[in-house]
Amino acid sequence: MGINKDSIILTGDRPTGPLHLGHFVGSLQKRVELQNQCKQYIMIADMQALTDYFKEPAKVVQNVTEVVKDYLAVGIDPEKSTIFIQSQIPELTELTALFMNLVTTARLERNPTIKAEIQLRQFDDSIPAGFLCYPVSQAADITLFNATHVPAGEDQAPMIEQTNELVRRFNYTYNTDCLNEVELLLSNTPRLIGIDGNAKASKSLGNAIFLGDSPETVHDKIFSMYTDPNHIRVNDPGSIEGNVVFAYLDAFHPDKAQVAEWKEHYQKGGLGDMYLKQQLCDVLQNLLTPIRERRKTISDEEALDIAIAGAQAIKPIAQNTLDKVKRAVGICYHSS
Amino acid sequence: MGINKDSIILTGDRPTGPLHLGHFVGSLQKRVELQNQCKQYIMIADMQALTDYFKEPAKVVQNVTEVVKDYLAVGIDPEKSTIFIQSQIPELTELTALFMNLVTTARLERNPTIKAEIQLRQFDDSIPAGFLCYPVSQAADITLFNATHVPAGEDQAPMIEQTNELVRRFNYTYNTDCLNEVELLLSNTPRLIGIDGNAKASKSLGNAIFLGDSPETVHDKIFSMYTDPNHIRVNDPGSIEGNVVFAYLDAFHPDKAQVAEWKEHYQKGGLGDMYLKQQLCDVLQNLLTPIRERRKTISDEEALDIAIAGAQAIKPIAQNTLDKVKRAVGICYHSS
Repeated sequence: MGINKDSIILTGDRPTGPLHLGHFVGSLQKRVELQNQCKQYIMIADMQALTDYFKEPAKVVQNVTEVVKDYLAVGIDPEKSTIFIQSQIPELTELTALFMNLVTTARLERNPTIKAEIQLRQFDDSIPAGFLCYPVSQAADITLFNATHVPAGEDQAPMIEQTNELVRRFNYTYNTDCLNEVELLLSNTPRLIGIDGNAKASKSLGNAIFLGDSPETVHDKIFSMYTDPNHIRVNDPGSIEGNVVFAYLDAFHPDKAQVAEWKEHYQKGGLGDMYLKQQLCDVLQNLLTPIRERRKTISDEEALDIAIAGAQAIKPIAQNTLDKVKRAVGICYHSS
Repeated sequence: MGINKDSIILTGDRPTGPLHLGHFVGSLQKRVELQNQCKQYIMIADMQALTDYFKEPAKVVQNVTEVVKDYLAVGIDPEKSTIFIQSQIPELTELTALFMNLVTTARLERNPTIKAEIQLRQFDDSIPAGFLCYPVSQAADITLFNATHVPAGEDQAPMIEQTNELVRRFNYTYNTDCLNEVELLLSNTPRLIGIDGNAKASKSLGNAIFLGDSPETVHDKIFSMYTDPNHIRVNDPGSIEGNVVFAYLDAFHPDKAQVAEWKEHYQKGGLGDMYLKQQLCDVLQNLLTPIRERRKTISDEEALDIAIAGAQAIKPIAQNTLDKVKRAVGICYHSS
């Protein structure tokens, strides 16, 4: 089912670094659209980031404000979208605690997303309990705010499945309908590759263009992009397969016909990498300049104030769902 | 180190049934003493009970008031001891979430207490995540209230070890001293056996005498006690090994010399089981009558009000520690 005005979006980011162009095409652009169509809650998942970065909490905390600034800079409007910090809604940990009884450790270990992430992080047999259980906490994030849709890539489907399993088990076990299943709102944009040709642009791989990068840095990153190593002379035919410049032109150039023409020309030979990089640079500087300028006008204090106000605004929803949850379980005690 | 006036005791029970004589000799008596020596917080662990009884929440919730009534009936004084319900201190789940990052699932699986309990419950490979992680939540229970001592049997030593491991890891990782290690206050009373001779008197085995049992039930349970199956005629020599009546006389008869004399006589022959059971019955009715009478005067509402007031009284301590914890991690955000 698609989005309508009654839909509730829950989305967000782990604050482990400033956001980059991969986030821009993958999620930020979509959020700017969605905020005009329905309710949208954007969570800065500091607690979830700590399941991974528990030894570097300062990195997480510092990036909370960076991420808010990125949101505001790209046009996420706090009047339309509620931006909040996860740790400011402790009700989430209460629901997580109740969910933890309804899922086995074996089930969590079978989650393909978690399996892949455990491998990526080389935890081997030293998996922090918090990391193994973060899909449970994520299920709480989604359900506590009555989200109907979570925008994400196909790789996040197992997380949504886990969430809905918990919702069904909770509702069944406690004979209630207070929690709602959620749908994956599949992103139709392909993942942006790194400037080095790596399958994913990411902060940790150092192959991303950040929204806050200076014009010089943007220029240098573009001109260092991986193209076709066999395209030595301008007149040689070039390959667009795995060619980063074309991947970025596809993602960012507004004139698709022009890009198609360049592709043909490039493959025949006679179109230089430098020319294309300059074209891409023009497009990206045009895109990034207003974002960078807006970003500069936002102070750390202002960014943080917005997120804190967001938590205050959204807290009653969390409390209301948690009240229902506790009533369903029966753990609500009142003075006589 | 022993207890002094600055000590802080954290103790409590899972509310999965009313309390029985096993609790009386094992912990309740000691609590009545301790409340005159230092601060004592008594937690009714409803959230912990749910890690086990998540499918029977009503059982847990109903027994919250039963347990409070048992406490008051044996002489635990809410003016001296703070009785509170675990789920009313949500700060506990926040600290648990942070602790979860500092312990691996492998470490939790190695915990001997958990291993034994998993076997007992025949979870096999279907261990609820909440159950595996309850020692983490227990560590939060203990440390959030700055407890210095936890009274328990030797079998709980691994839980205290796990708690202190988490305290040390937290303080080291976040360069703080805001959490304190805790000591096991070893109980010197042997565990009370069941009236059927089973190693443990327990509600689930149906072999316990409850503090609220009627005089008739107490009488019947005593006269059904397992003694020496070879002691058929009064004049036969009897064995006191595994003899439930003697175990209870040891635990409850005030005149130890008299019990010693009976033991000698019984082993020689000439002392009847009925006579001894009547002696035990007199002692236990004397012990239980005032408890039962006091228990009857306490309404459910009164019991619950006391526990709710306890949570209100203790909440500032939880908030204060959690504030320090969040400051140490850095996840404290303030509006400008």
